[in-house]
Amino acid sequence: MNSYGNNQNCAHQTLSKKGREMKSSIVIFDQFTDIDLFLMWDLLNRVRLPGWEVRILGERSQHISATGIAVPTHGLIDEANHSDVVLFVSGQGTRTKMKDQAWLSRFRLNPGKQMIGSICSGALLLAALGLLEGKTATTYPTTKQTLESLGVTVEEKAFVEHGNIATAGGCLAAQYLVGWVIEKKASAEWKQLILKSIKPVGEGLSFADAPDLGRLYAPILSAGR
Amino acid sequence: MNSYGNNQNCAHQTLSKKGREMKSSIVIFDQFTDIDLFLMWDLLNRVRLPGWEVRILGERSQHISATGIAVPTHGLIDEANHSDVVLFVSGQGTRTKMKDQAWLSRFRLNPGKQMIGSICSGALLLAALGLLEGKTATTYPTTKQTLESLGVTVEEKAFVEHGNIATAGGCLAAQYLVGWVIEKKASAEWKQLILKSIKPVGEGLSFADAPDLGRLYAPILSAGR
Repeated sequence: MNSYGNNQNCAHQTLSKKGREMKSSIVIFDQFTDIDLFLMWDLLNRVRLPGWEVRILGERSQHISATGIAVPTHGLIDEANHSDVVLFVSGQGTRTKMKDQAWLSRFRLNPGKQMIGSICSGALLLAALGLLEGKTATTYPTTKQTLESLGVTVEEKAFVEHGNIATAGGCLAAQYLVGWVIEKKASAEWKQLILKSIKPVGEGLSFADAPDLGRLYAPILSAGR
Repeated sequence: MNSYGNNQNCAHQTLSKKGREMKSSIVIFDQFTDIDLFLMWDLLNRVRLPGWEVRILGERSQHISATGIAVPTHGLIDEANHSDVVLFVSGQGTRTKMKDQAWLSRFRLNPGKQMIGSICSGALLLAALGLLEGKTATTYPTTKQTLESLGVTVEEKAFVEHGNIATAGGCLAAQYLVGWVIEKKASAEWKQLILKSIKPVGEGLSFADAPDLGRLYAPILSAGR
């Protein structure tokens, strides 16, 4: 029996495993890469489990993306310290934030308890926080040298995982990063369905998948209902 | 000699072809799918040509995405009528908008002069605007039946192009749609570089691509400078 109550008519239960009171935070700042936030954000929000929460965190009530879009935040970066998962986005803003000691000092992350990851140049922030010491990592091609200058051995891979710390390189590699989170915190089934749901039709997604996809748009049932 | 002035030091020129005074509009509404807006938006903004403009249009100063994010618009939907390219996003909101005659009547699009496209359920809006009459199209699996009910023959493909009208199905198929626009309105070189720029490292993107990628972050030079 799974942990999401005893309603036998709950279509979600076949996909449920974990996820109750599971909070993922995505950390943004000014001059972040739009797609790197929104690909992770959209995919993480496709998990339909009670207690599954995704938050966009920043220093202010909104941050301005690399293309000039004002994106509201749900909370302050300090919340990351109490999140189950903390993901750092990328963008030109990472070069400022990696040197911003006041900003960095607000993070007290614990890779013993939290899953921590980055997309593209977000790896610079993991390095600046001391989270990549003794570890290899990947990043975006244009930030490889900067990441190396911080003492990190950079691997030419889409995704590098070391226990609870993972880095992804290249915007679409966010699928690996988010898949890693969803598999660990929800289930392999949720991961598979969610990653399939964004494939091009005829290239991993078919019209016959419509009934399964419906699960991603179903209302979230409360725990125990 | 190309049309972007005579500054021989302009790194963009090797990629330039067209693009001067080229306006693309992306039409949004409440309950739109986040990633379908931001993947197109981010990619289209990577073209660094003078006069290349991308605008997010709606009925109001902001619209709320499917996940609850308030996204500001740059202008009203009527602007689409004077855009070179008009792209419709997807999401549950398309079911409301496809029946909203007041909204639909504000569009006076001309496929003889404009490139017009949709991602996923945005095809419902093209159909409601009469733009798919006598044409085949693709859409998201969960909206295939609704699109058929509007008299459209639906093809199980990632991308269906008929002259100046194109439909894409599955979020990541936005790459085909945006690639179609960028190739026609900028150049095949821009298309290739931009689509490569979001690939995962080791899967279409390599660290050796860093110098080329730099072109996507260079400032846009004014025409004639």
